Amino acid sequence: MRQSQLFGKSTRAVSSEVKSKGLEYLIRGGFIRESSSGRFYLLPLGLRVQERICAIVEDEMNRVGAQRMLAPVLHPIELWEETNRTSSVSFELMRVRDRSERSFVLGGTAEEMLVALVRQFAISAKDLPFCLYQFSTKFRDELRARGGMLRAREFLMKDGYSFHASKEDFERFYREISESYLRIFKRLDLLARIVESDNGYMGGDYCHEFVVDHSLGESRYFVSHDETKAIHEDLVNKMGEAERSGLTERAGIEVGNIFQLGTWYSDRMKGAEFTGSDGKSHRYYMGCYGIGIGRTLSTIAELYSDDRGLRWPKGSSPFSLHLIALGQDSEVIEAADKLYRGLSEKGGSVLYDDRELSVGVKFADADLIGIHERVIVSRRLLERGVFEVVNRFTGEGREVSEGEVMSRV
Amino acid sequence: MRQSQLFGKSTRAVSSEVKSKGLEYLIRGGFIRESSSGRFYLLPLGLRVQERICAIVEDEMNRVGAQRMLAPVLHPIELWEETNRTSSVSFELMRVRDRSERSFVLGGTAEEMLVALVRQFAISAKDLPFCLYQFSTKFRDELRARGGMLRAREFLMKDGYSFHASKEDFERFYREISESYLRIFKRLDLLARIVESDNGYMGGDYCHEFVVDHSLGESRYFVSHDETKAIHEDLVNKMGEAERSGLTERAGIEVGNIFQLGTWYSDRMKGAEFTGSDGKSHRYYMGCYGIGIGRTLSTIAELYSDDRGLRWPKGSSPFSLHLIALGQDSEVIEAADKLYRGLSEKGGSVLYDDRELSVGVKFADADLIGIHERVIVSRRLLERGVFEVVNRFTGEGREVSEGEVMSRV
Repeated sequence: MRQSQLFGKSTRAVSSEVKSKGLEYLIRGGFIRESSSGRFYLLPLGLRVQERICAIVEDEMNRVGAQRMLAPVLHPIELWEETNRTSSVSFELMRVRDRSERSFVLGGTAEEMLVALVRQFAISAKDLPFCLYQFSTKFRDELRARGGMLRAREFLMKDGYSFHASKEDFERFYREISESYLRIFKRLDLLARIVESDNGYMGGDYCHEFVVDHSLGESRYFVSHDETKAIHEDLVNKMGEAERSGLTERAGIEVGNIFQLGTWYSDRMKGAEFTGSDGKSHRYYMGCYGIGIGRTLSTIAELYSDDRGLRWPKGSSPFSLHLIALGQDSEVIEAADKLYRGLSEKGGSVLYDDRELSVGVKFADADLIGIHERVIVSRRLLERGVFEVVNRFTGEGREVSEGEVMSRV
Repeated sequence: MRQSQLFGKSTRAVSSEVKSKGLEYLIRGGFIRESSSGRFYLLPLGLRVQERICAIVEDEMNRVGAQRMLAPVLHPIELWEETNRTSSVSFELMRVRDRSERSFVLGGTAEEMLVALVRQFAISAKDLPFCLYQFSTKFRDELRARGGMLRAREFLMKDGYSFHASKEDFERFYREISESYLRIFKRLDLLARIVESDNGYMGGDYCHEFVVDHSLGESRYFVSHDETKAIHEDLVNKMGEAERSGLTERAGIEVGNIFQLGTWYSDRMKGAEFTGSDGKSHRYYMGCYGIGIGRTLSTIAELYSDDRGLRWPKGSSPFSLHLIALGQDSEVIEAADKLYRGLSEKGGSVLYDDRELSVGVKFADADLIGIHERVIVSRRLLERGVFEVVNRFTGEGREVSEGEVMSRV
């Protein structure tokens, strides 16, 4: 894509309410804009990052056999009444009524919706286990929206739900999903730690958070001296004095979570059962698995930035390459145009800075946007028959041939 | 994907309220399920079809230079008050209030949201034109939900919005988008006709519907004798007796629409302007462009089915190939397994019917699901060293070598 055409120009200033570097760069770089407080537009650059994150999540979810589907945004309130979660969830539910006076919940999580779907089918033991997941907009009526996209009122979430014939089978899958989550975050260059946690509003007995250490994070947890064990502060508060000694407090951003739900939902929702090999009805054993996509995006932005702007890791960079033509003389423009055409024909994901702007402005914008790798075309380089490739993430740069540039996409 | 693992078993019966063949097959085949009336779950098969349709739409939108982004689902009601559309739109708006008593609209269309975004930027003449689009869930508070996904209360829509410095530039782009729409529907095997229409609730002077002829459609229009001109019934009713003679009435499904908006929104929304080359502020000239993704999906289902089930065209088939092993003897299973592995390694999109079921059940399910092309493995065929390929869309079948099957993905 030609940068002269890109919607969402970079800007120099943001509102003084923006307190974090990552958020400031996302706004200034033209990735996101706030609509109402806590609700964001994703501009073309921001949506590209989100799509790249989703692609990695999808790939790893499919690898453990999970199947993607999509539930409606409006959940009939009767379903939430079946489990009595209308009065027990810790986030405030948003409700809406249609012209026929039917009430709906704007989904914060979708356990009831998934059980309501699954019970439409006659499930037998040999249909189990299965895991369904979706990417869907979630709503939380936060009293105060803080931290930009780290704690938004509306955000994209990957939420998955698994159904099992036995506790043992669930536990096997829970370990698989846990490993799958670690692979996802690794591919996104996030070092996520598994923190034992409290189940809260979801029902069930235990759950684990995936937390990336960061001072902006609202998750407080404690690690053991040898760093092999991490426990959420709520659980630590229940411990005795002796057990707590030797634990160190940390702050981090919760990018994902996995929940054991047991039969909490199938106990409460009529028909949430399968026919066992004994011919009798049994309640299925469930788990649920979330990843905050918007929060993951902003965690990467907070973690990987310097005093000039963002530094996208390879897995989430909005484009693979940022092609920058320095200067306006026809030789440079021609060479850059040709390279851009060649890369595009190969299907490369390239942002081409074709704007008639000074070298200083172009570099400042490139630093701000932070595409993983950039390719520079200049008269000086052309005279020597090379291009310069600079990795924004690592800072490394070197001169390469045209063939080598082409081989990068 | 192995069919034994696929969530959403085919079923033999549907509710008597389901009146159309396409909808019946979508439900029975495990593509969709209704949640509350007019709101649907997309099961894995249905979501795959939707994703394929979106990919074609995205490809053609990008080709005309449109840029994908995403606006929040909840629109601040103040924006709709700026244009006074809260009291003028023809579909009933759904409203929701948060715990701080702020009111929002559940978006039916997003003109105000896009203008509110664009006016956050200092736009000059040389930034124009641009076109932004999104795939987003839309809400219509229909009094009665009829026709399944043909007229749903919640549905995915591709909505695009273009901004221009002049009427002439808008008209050029309007023609481009119009051609792009015809390419999209052609790739989906839909013969869409352009119908001159009334602008309705959108503001602006004129618009065009893209209509696929079908008796289930709610669009009534008239065609001239030579079929070169098609006019919406509302416009025909304004014509004189003489003009109307020679016009024939038709019914069709409106799968897309394009609207001239002119300066209707920029006249009403403060700051909806750009700096012209004369240094002065001007209002931008706008257009908007919709495609109902869910409706397009169900139109294909209604159009392409027979008495046994669905017949997906190539462009929207949930999988490219349906691999079917007939019989349970180990030779057949081994050959089918091997072919499945080979096709999967090549990145082929294959549904593999590995279930231990009778030939009759497998064929009945394959006919119902209607994947574009199927590959049959049987003892009789293996003895002659061939596979049978049958095109469900055209009905043609022939025997092919393993090499030829592999070359199809």
